[in-house]
Amino acid sequence: MRVRILVSFKESVLDPQGQTVKNALLTLGYSSVKDVRQGKVFEIEFDGISDEDARRIVPEIANKVLANPIIEKFAWEILGEAKQV
Amino acid sequence: MRVRILVSFKESVLDPQGQTVKNALLTLGYSSVKDVRQGKVFEIEFDGISDEDARRIVPEIANKVLANPIIEKFAWEILGEAKQV
Repeated sequence: MRVRILVSFKESVLDPQGQTVKNALLTLGYSSVKDVRQGKVFEIEFDGISDEDARRIVPEIANKVLANPIIEKFAWEILGEAKQV
Repeated sequence: MRVRILVSFKESVLDPQGQTVKNALLTLGYSSVKDVRQGKVFEIEFDGISDEDARRIVPEIANKVLANPIIEKFAWEILGEAKQV
């Protein structure tokens, strides 16, 4: 099973990387850009686990390893059994 | 309009961050983890652009600023008009 986990700063936390990208885009003339937030994405391939296992394991992994729950939030979804291109 | 862009290494490119996370998870006892790939996610809010504008602007931004097209690939989707929580 392939799972995608998105980790990003909570809305209340400053995002300097996103700000830098926003400034770069405005400088390049993309004046329609209003806000940019940058985060991390993890794609994890699990062997032989059920959907139920995933619902238990993935939030645990996200909170313990992938995200800092003080300043970051995460969202996740199952991508399916097949390997993504 | 709010757009999400996922940037990750091409499959043929080594992903040391993903490998480190994979090793950490295996060390913690998550033996069902087979592979981990890490990438970046950008959420960009645009002001007053159409879907057609987005289809022109977003790939341009991704190739010029967000991703290094030599070693990275990107995928994107429109999240909608409303701000995500």
